[in-house]
Amino acid sequence: MLLLLHRAMVPGLQQASRLRSTLRLCIRACSTDDSFQPQHPSRTFSDDNSARRGWGVMGTLLGLGAVLAYHECRCRADQESPRVYTREEVSSHCSPKTGIWVTFGHEVFDVTEFVDLHPGGPSKLMLAAGGPLEPFWALYAVHNQPNVREILAQYKIGELNPEDKAPPTLENSDPYAGDPPRHPALKVNSQRPFNAEPHPELLTENYITPNSLFFTRNHLPVPNLDPDTYRLHVVGPPGGQSLSLSLDDLRQFSKHEVTVTVQCAGNRRSEMTKVKEVKGLEWTTGAISTAHWAGARLCDVLAQAGHHLSETEAHVCFEGLDSDPTGSAYGASIPLARALDPEAEVLLAYEMNGQPLPRDHGFPVRVVVPGVVGARHVKWLGKVSVEPEESYSHWQRRDYKGFSPSVDWDSVDFDLAPAIQELPIQSAITQPRDGETVESGEVTVKGYAWSGGGRAVVRVDVSLDGGLTWQVAELDGEVQRPRKAWAWRLWQLQAPVPAGQKELNIVCKAVDDSYNVQPDTVAPIWNLRGVLSNAWHRVHVHVAP
Amino acid sequence: MLLLLHRAMVPGLQQASRLRSTLRLCIRACSTDDSFQPQHPSRTFSDDNSARRGWGVMGTLLGLGAVLAYHECRCRADQESPRVYTREEVSSHCSPKTGIWVTFGHEVFDVTEFVDLHPGGPSKLMLAAGGPLEPFWALYAVHNQPNVREILAQYKIGELNPEDKAPPTLENSDPYAGDPPRHPALKVNSQRPFNAEPHPELLTENYITPNSLFFTRNHLPVPNLDPDTYRLHVVGPPGGQSLSLSLDDLRQFSKHEVTVTVQCAGNRRSEMTKVKEVKGLEWTTGAISTAHWAGARLCDVLAQAGHHLSETEAHVCFEGLDSDPTGSAYGASIPLARALDPEAEVLLAYEMNGQPLPRDHGFPVRVVVPGVVGARHVKWLGKVSVEPEESYSHWQRRDYKGFSPSVDWDSVDFDLAPAIQELPIQSAITQPRDGETVESGEVTVKGYAWSGGGRAVVRVDVSLDGGLTWQVAELDGEVQRPRKAWAWRLWQLQAPVPAGQKELNIVCKAVDDSYNVQPDTVAPIWNLRGVLSNAWHRVHVHVAP
Repeated sequence: MLLLLHRAMVPGLQQASRLRSTLRLCIRACSTDDSFQPQHPSRTFSDDNSARRGWGVMGTLLGLGAVLAYHECRCRADQESPRVYTREEVSSHCSPKTGIWVTFGHEVFDVTEFVDLHPGGPSKLMLAAGGPLEPFWALYAVHNQPNVREILAQYKIGELNPEDKAPPTLENSDPYAGDPPRHPALKVNSQRPFNAEPHPELLTENYITPNSLFFTRNHLPVPNLDPDTYRLHVVGPPGGQSLSLSLDDLRQFSKHEVTVTVQCAGNRRSEMTKVKEVKGLEWTTGAISTAHWAGARLCDVLAQAGHHLSETEAHVCFEGLDSDPTGSAYGASIPLARALDPEAEVLLAYEMNGQPLPRDHGFPVRVVVPGVVGARHVKWLGKVSVEPEESYSHWQRRDYKGFSPSVDWDSVDFDLAPAIQELPIQSAITQPRDGETVESGEVTVKGYAWSGGGRAVVRVDVSLDGGLTWQVAELDGEVQRPRKAWAWRLWQLQAPVPAGQKELNIVCKAVDDSYNVQPDTVAPIWNLRGVLSNAWHRVHVHVAP
Repeated sequence: MLLLLHRAMVPGLQQASRLRSTLRLCIRACSTDDSFQPQHPSRTFSDDNSARRGWGVMGTLLGLGAVLAYHECRCRADQESPRVYTREEVSSHCSPKTGIWVTFGHEVFDVTEFVDLHPGGPSKLMLAAGGPLEPFWALYAVHNQPNVREILAQYKIGELNPEDKAPPTLENSDPYAGDPPRHPALKVNSQRPFNAEPHPELLTENYITPNSLFFTRNHLPVPNLDPDTYRLHVVGPPGGQSLSLSLDDLRQFSKHEVTVTVQCAGNRRSEMTKVKEVKGLEWTTGAISTAHWAGARLCDVLAQAGHHLSETEAHVCFEGLDSDPTGSAYGASIPLARALDPEAEVLLAYEMNGQPLPRDHGFPVRVVVPGVVGARHVKWLGKVSVEPEESYSHWQRRDYKGFSPSVDWDSVDFDLAPAIQELPIQSAITQPRDGETVESGEVTVKGYAWSGGGRAVVRVDVSLDGGLTWQVAELDGEVQRPRKAWAWRLWQLQAPVPAGQKELNIVCKAVDDSYNVQPDTVAPIWNLRGVLSNAWHRVHVHVAP
């Protein structure tokens, strides 16, 4: 903060004036909107190491006359014809070293000095560094007020070159050329196929993950399906009639809504990679998200097709309309018993958080299997059939299975392990980040916890000393229904930082209502595919002196 | 073995003769009965450090003449009038130091020299030291053949005093005076109320635990109920009719049979005690057993009483006919949804392994709730009712719940934790025992694994080096049904002992079909009641040089 003031005063007092206005506007914004929850109130409003103290310092140093003089200077500058920048120039300004620029509409802003004042925390603003603000403001409605626009206006440095076009689209020969645009806040783990996760601190900002931030796990290019000609093929029982359902047909079934957390089997794989190399995408803690889904219940559709529960170990097999160059589609299956159980609430979903499914999430129809690994929630659903055995798909039989740490690619026999269906108890810390420096005094730890099979999260224990002592976190988010705890709990703990502590080894572990717990360490659950990574989550932080 | 031969030769060659006959008979017994599986074949039949080598040594030393001479001497001794011993004298001979005596019928035997030759292993014979053989021979049918009686006859040293009565019964004023007799192989953790577990190596001798060895968890004195006048009171729904069912009435319902493992929440509590004191009985690894149960399905009985599944979170409450001096009975409850689900197979059981329930296990009727903690399997069942909330019993609301390690008796709030229903994944090593010395070359590790909620055991990993490297154990016992894996898997691993190894830190951990795993260590799951102790099980053994 003192560094910032110093910089503000040396290159020109115009910046000091901007800072003063910004603080005033920030305070006004906060006081007029109750829903506005500053992440770091101490930075803006408390007396300790704060912008308010900075403001006091500035007032003393500058005096009212100087402020007014420089305000006039700024007004003159505004009237001059604006400088013009290309998108490329803007995107090169994305760090404190280069300066931090953003765009809004056709205007360009240098928000370098504002980053530390951002009421949502500097790290969130940094997600937009070098690019447009709109995708982020669309997520956080608090920005949709005149005060916020006023703050931004003060940082304007020019406009985008109207000749400057968006980056060229991918070549037509690229099978991924037709993939949809994505939100820039997603951390991309692979571009083709597209796999990306939200940054941890965005992830637990909301109990319901916004559609644009929902983690994306694609195995193949995103198909471009016409909702008018879309048909879902439901194979009937032997001797029976098959169904060919349009989107409208599906909407004729009773509409069922349910909030479900979806987690990839590879969530937190990057922690396994640290133990020993594995095959798979480097997911951190964000391959998990929660949405409110709506659609037809699979049991209703199967019943209409004439299926009923037989005594056999039949499976319901799903095929996607995404396919590789050989025409082979993504596929998976779940036990018929689960599919036909109305209490299991398996959906053929056509809505996600009140909107049609986004293309990345299966438009127009996907399967949602509450409590079960994401790999079975087949997207762009084309075909449903009841088979005597589980799907013969690669992803059912030769992937998404757990093995002993002793099994390697030479010794693995995929037939020896069951396909992952329900997932084990899981939790992770999303705030603070690993390596971050936290204030002394008190630390706020936040995260998520979830278990498969509808098992509720009954407790999250947090340790600041690597697991020697524990405190019980407060559970947030919706209360879970017994046996149908399909959605996660968010949690937080505010705890004093022991005096003199220079670092904290923060750990979390959750307990579900079958009293299953997470294992202490990663190595003993390491497996060659890096799935099922649910050891205690650990974050190491420094404490500011 | 050499020590044994030495001892056999010094005090009298009669013993050497006995040893020779014993070996011959042992070999005959083994060769005539395929079901006879010697635990330590190397001790009796291999060329390495074996009795056969001992026999060769004896033959060389003694010569046939000497053998015959001493045989005659022994025959004369048999004709003399037998020495008479009291039961008290016998019971004082229960260690290698005092000599090891046992009784069979009215005869007394000194089997000190036979202990190391026992084909079932010395430790099993030691369970009977100082007392009668009958309870053990009743369990292991292999003893029911003439050869075994011949072996025993050679060790006869006298007879029991016919005047000698069984130990006096408990005083009539003792509320536990009416408790039934118990098998001497049970390790008693508390006599009043009676709580006892089988020794680990007996526990996994059989997939189905014999009734007399099934762990016993009583909270109160065992009621003495007359099957002819017994009535089960099933409270009807509001405005409906209640049922009063005799044992014959219960038998009119469709008879349902299911193999179910029952585990006490306090199983393996003794490992938690080592971390920090807890309140509870010192169960080791034996508070778990498996039986084949038969009875009426609870859902059928509830349906007959007019109950059906409402949307509320109703519970089915059970009351036992065991009661404390104030008349307060043992009680517990399970969710109505589970009780009414035919697939959950909740039983009102009147048979255990084809026999009427033993008194210690709830005669004439107990609840069996597959996949759920033993505390809900209410014994001596007197009353069933459907209530809007779970049972108000102490054991439902103020016990059998899990808490964070940070919670102590000053801070505990029992309302904050859910009553244990389904239990987490569990496994333990039953062979070798902690502290035992194992042969070099190869080690056999055995144990059990089980998970709650019908979740199947998909893998057991065993480590000989404290968890650094793992091997996958072989699963024995019946194959588990998907979603209805109510009974345990036994498992074993035969693994080479690394050359030069002086000790082994053997560890096991199991995985269920939701891929839940056991936590690495006990301290982070410690809780003030010492329940849910399911960390990796660890056994430290020495390797014979």
